[in-house]
Amino acid sequence: MIVVMEKSATQAQIEHMIGRVQELGLKAHVIQGTERTVIAAVGDDRGSSKESLASGPGVSEVVPILAPYKVASRELKPDPTQIQVGQFKAGAGVVGVMAGPCSVESEEQIVSSAHAVKKAGATALRGGAFKPRTSPYSFQGMKEEGLKLLALAREETGLAIVTEVMSTEEVDLVAKYSDVLQIGARNMQNYRLLEAVGNSDRAVLLKRGASATIEEFLLAAEYILNEGNPNVMLCERGIRTFETHTRFTLPLATVPYLHRKTHLPVIIDPSHGTGHAYLVPDMSVAAVAAGADGLIIEVHPTPETAASDGYQSLTFPQFDETMARCARVAVAVDKEMCTMH
Amino acid sequence: MIVVMEKSATQAQIEHMIGRVQELGLKAHVIQGTERTVIAAVGDDRGSSKESLASGPGVSEVVPILAPYKVASRELKPDPTQIQVGQFKAGAGVVGVMAGPCSVESEEQIVSSAHAVKKAGATALRGGAFKPRTSPYSFQGMKEEGLKLLALAREETGLAIVTEVMSTEEVDLVAKYSDVLQIGARNMQNYRLLEAVGNSDRAVLLKRGASATIEEFLLAAEYILNEGNPNVMLCERGIRTFETHTRFTLPLATVPYLHRKTHLPVIIDPSHGTGHAYLVPDMSVAAVAAGADGLIIEVHPTPETAASDGYQSLTFPQFDETMARCARVAVAVDKEMCTMH
Amino acid sequence: MIVVMEKSATQAQIEHMIGRVQELGLKAHVIQGTERTVIAAVGDDRGSSKESLASGPGVSEVVPILAPYKVASRELKPDPTQIQVGQFKAGAGVVGVMAGPCSVESEEQIVSSAHAVKKAGATALRGGAFKPRTSPYSFQGMKEEGLKLLALAREETGLAIVTEVMSTEEVDLVAKYSDVLQIGARNMQNYRLLEAVGNSDRAVLLKRGASATIEEFLLAAEYILNEGNPNVMLCERGIRTFETHTRFTLPLATVPYLHRKTHLPVIIDPSHGTGHAYLVPDMSVAAVAAGADGLIIEVHPTPETAASDGYQSLTFPQFDETMARCARVAVAVDKEMCTMH
Amino acid sequence: MIVVMEKSATQAQIEHMIGRVQELGLKAHVIQGTERTVIAAVGDDRGSSKESLASGPGVSEVVPILAPYKVASRELKPDPTQIQVGQFKAGAGVVGVMAGPCSVESEEQIVSSAHAVKKAGATALRGGAFKPRTSPYSFQGMKEEGLKLLALAREETGLAIVTEVMSTEEVDLVAKYSDVLQIGARNMQNYRLLEAVGNSDRAVLLKRGASATIEEFLLAAEYILNEGNPNVMLCERGIRTFETHTRFTLPLATVPYLHRKTHLPVIIDPSHGTGHAYLVPDMSVAAVAAGADGLIIEVHPTPETAASDGYQSLTFPQFDETMARCARVAVAVDKEMCTMH
Repeated sequence: MIVVMEKSATQAQIEHMIGRVQELGLKAHVIQGTERTVIAAVGDDRGSSKESLASGPGVSEVVPILAPYKVASRELKPDPTQIQVGQFKAGAGVVGVMAGPCSVESEEQIVSSAHAVKKAGATALRGGAFKPRTSPYSFQGMKEEGLKLLALAREETGLAIVTEVMSTEEVDLVAKYSDVLQIGARNMQNYRLLEAVGNSDRAVLLKRGASATIEEFLLAAEYILNEGNPNVMLCERGIRTFETHTRFTLPLATVPYLHRKTHLPVIIDPSHGTGHAYLVPDMSVAAVAAGADGLIIEVHPTPETAASDGYQSLTFPQFDETMARCARVAVAVDKEMCTMH
Repeated sequence: MIVVMEKSATQAQIEHMIGRVQELGLKAHVIQGTERTVIAAVGDDRGSSKESLASGPGVSEVVPILAPYKVASRELKPDPTQIQVGQFKAGAGVVGVMAGPCSVESEEQIVSSAHAVKKAGATALRGGAFKPRTSPYSFQGMKEEGLKLLALAREETGLAIVTEVMSTEEVDLVAKYSDVLQIGARNMQNYRLLEAVGNSDRAVLLKRGASATIEEFLLAAEYILNEGNPNVMLCERGIRTFETHTRFTLPLATVPYLHRKTHLPVIIDPSHGTGHAYLVPDMSVAAVAAGADGLIIEVHPTPETAASDGYQSLTFPQFDETMARCARVAVAVDKEMCTMH
Repeated sequence: MIVVMEKSATQAQIEHMIGRVQELGLKAHVIQGTERTVIAAVGDDRGSSKESLASGPGVSEVVPILAPYKVASRELKPDPTQIQVGQFKAGAGVVGVMAGPCSVESEEQIVSSAHAVKKAGATALRGGAFKPRTSPYSFQGMKEEGLKLLALAREETGLAIVTEVMSTEEVDLVAKYSDVLQIGARNMQNYRLLEAVGNSDRAVLLKRGASATIEEFLLAAEYILNEGNPNVMLCERGIRTFETHTRFTLPLATVPYLHRKTHLPVIIDPSHGTGHAYLVPDMSVAAVAAGADGLIIEVHPTPETAASDGYQSLTFPQFDETMARCARVAVAVDKEMCTMH
Repeated sequence: MIVVMEKSATQAQIEHMIGRVQELGLKAHVIQGTERTVIAAVGDDRGSSKESLASGPGVSEVVPILAPYKVASRELKPDPTQIQVGQFKAGAGVVGVMAGPCSVESEEQIVSSAHAVKKAGATALRGGAFKPRTSPYSFQGMKEEGLKLLALAREETGLAIVTEVMSTEEVDLVAKYSDVLQIGARNMQNYRLLEAVGNSDRAVLLKRGASATIEEFLLAAEYILNEGNPNVMLCERGIRTFETHTRFTLPLATVPYLHRKTHLPVIIDPSHGTGHAYLVPDMSVAAVAAGADGLIIEVHPTPETAASDGYQSLTFPQFDETMARCARVAVAVDKEMCTMH
């Protein structure tokens, strides 16, 4: 880290801060600039309460140098991680697609969706049984009954099951019926929940919080990895910005940026990322072109009557067409679409 | 709600949507504009999956008219709510101040802080025992031992205790030792946790999520109120914007806006809201002037060595001075500072 | 527009607002809801000072229904516009690429760049002669001398020239030497400048302001179109958000969204949109996949010594490789790359 | 500046970058960390194209240390600047208020407004004659006729006149009739215009761009100061964020932050900063409490019929009451309200 002193800092203040740096177990290098003095602190400062140094006397600011995450880091593990769950694979050149309705609503709905998305080329089925809803008056999901319907759909199709878990108490139950535990954007910094799924043997799909920086996102992954669960997929689902014509703003540059910083696979959610069904096909194709390792797409038999998120759900024919376009682009960028074997 | 049709919508599409509106139990009024047709849907549409209508044929957009929250609404309860917990009061003309360190670090630290903030005029002590930290490698709090130290500080000073609860399993434990349960910004949409504190008999300090809209904030409060706990304080602690010279951007207009929309008291957190101790005094004073019903301020015996958030913590003398200034401004805006009796 | 009244609005207030709507030359339809009354105002309200109605007595809010732009609208002109300038074409299925250095620095630099980008497949050369720089102490461009070098590069290669114009006084001068007048993001709402280029016979590349909504962006285009210049290209170059790992956040969903709302071609600037050369290739490819009608990319012989924006400039070989990848993806999405004939 | 090398950087790359730093006329200090090497570059790097170093081989990032502005800096001029224009004063303990309608609409309107705001305690009259409007179809202002009416209002009341100038061609004309040239938020980075007002002998009110960082804001001021005009007031008028319940988000922390960084006075615009008349009084009072050196407030005889911005304009009685409250708070924070003498 670099401690930048105020222009007016006294020699005593500089010496005081050198002492503080040393108390943290770091080596202090002092650089006398033309206008300011800076103190470079050398050593691994992760875990130290270094930010508090900024309130030291005569300090202008503290600039961190080391990335605060380790296990998620590409420097530690240069090879890309591939996640494999049943027939679903993502990462290291393979693009896996998860698709299905926002909420599980009925056997008919989820099973027909499963068949339709499988036919179009998806290898995992998404569907919410425990639904985090902004309003307490909205549909809250079918809970365990929904999980059972997901398991039934898996039986019928062989698709892997991805579904959200919202609290520590539900982790075992959700893990019993599903293959991939989804941590929703609202829970990205629910640290007890991250620890709980870190102790599960299920793969985890970690969604980026709507205003999380990439560093916070990777540190959330680090909570899971740190508990011993290496099977983490990072999902960009759009960030909150001043834009209102889309539900969120979907920054696809997250894909190549994360590929540079981490070995974990990167999944794109164009449904939440745009919030409008008519934008989903083009953004799905663009995500594959940007190098995404997977997609998670909302698909519903009749979006107009969906219990949640209908406006951003594709119909079966729209999903079919989207998958065909993704497959063509995958070839053009030397990627392989994951398929059922 | 208003369903706005595309300019190119056919009569059949318009009729289809009228039918859909009626299926939701609402009355449809059709208005033929010069360029577009709009369908006004009359009736209480809270709880219906009205958003999915946006994917109906020929629909351009769906514009909600009713606020989605009820119990939190000022329309329902025009008189401001005052929260009283031991010696602490906030709302309906009274400004209550909670202050103390970010984390409980030791008996000496928390008890000396309690005495100092009480002397300066605070009537509640804040201090974290369970700490949500961005990095798994950072100090995670003293947990139950920290709670015991808070209770000890209460015994010595009579201050009410405010401390964060991070998961449903900890609610009872935290409630045992404290007076006000704080829901942190990262957990504002952790709905299970909101329900759990909604079932507690402790007052709740609900912090606004860093990218939550006011509507989402009030709906999070609604989750708590809806479970039967009426003692909710809303805390604005800054939102995430493009600004980097402050940790978050503190929008004080939240105060008069919330006062118009809800009867619940509004607390300002200038410490997280700015992230720099040198900005906290002026923003505390400004918050009182804007009409805030309370403040929550980080204070530490020696910020430079704090285990967390030192850079935004006031020293005891700085807090003293800040309280004196707040008291003068409170008089000027016809507010009363809450004091120990 | 819809005038939403407060729940507590009196009959007299409602009648007052009906009168106000009629004074604007609009027809008022009153809809009595279960909780509120809304007044739908029918007629073309563009140009009326309708926003001020929001301060009428008993008014809760005013919701616009009609898009405020006309000439740019796809409803007015359903067919996509193709811009053709010399050898450069963009729109209606053709993807045109403009490339070159941020600033013109010397004859050697600009001419070698022109040859390199032409060889790789670009049909227009970009290069700044008048440079808008955040700091008055930064390099401000070669001005007219730079324009002459651009014209020289055109002579040698046949590439169309795209360069920025910063003020009304410079429009004629810049038009004299170039083919496409660029309006930079900082000047997107410099209305006098928009009017001036609207009166020029050169095509215009209008960059989106860093915090402009899409509606404001289209209204800026409308200023130009409204003066009689139909040759406007819209350029998404990234928006300002809380993200700091990229210079701006590049929302590719702008492409399909704009294609739905306007007939004008949409160009993507992945250089400013990301701010890091290593992110530019993947985002270029993704932009083509998303349906962009063109790209504008910074390319420099030796980025490390560039007078401006070196960190986001591709080298010649990097640009070569990027163009090859774009060409493959263009085929996969049924687009045609514009080439020299 | 600090050049942070990649973990994998080779010795040759480090040496190459040392050479590059030296070529910029800076001294290079190499610090060998446990994980990375950093090169501290010592010397005044303002004006050098240092950012391009980030594209050097093996470079991870370049961290600037020196603030890029000089003349605006508090380090250069520790005493606060007070601006005095006729009867209007702002800065160094004095709070000056500018008020009046968004647009000049008629003699009756502007003269009655002038009398009303003077009576309430304002010492400057605002009013737009050249109006930057988002839509080309909106009212564009009365232009020179409006300026003449402003001058007439000055004659009748003695108030200083503040009005916007939108382009370089209009600077002389606007200066002829007014006392303070306002640069609107949309033109904050219109550098030719900044230079033009920098060469005027009128004071300048520089509004912060809706997505400008504080550094960009101070550099815009630097453009003006650098041309020799020292009379610059900085106006915070709200930034664009994800919030939609207010027109912009008004970050009052800008006040104490700017006071730390610059000697220039800081004016708050609560009208644009909130966009709702009912939020303006509380935010005006809060701005004074936060230490603002002045306010600029929209006031209109009949907001409901205003040609622009009616929804955020105070009526005369509302402004009266707001000024009375501001005066009480000014006393409480040891400030003096500027009054006519």
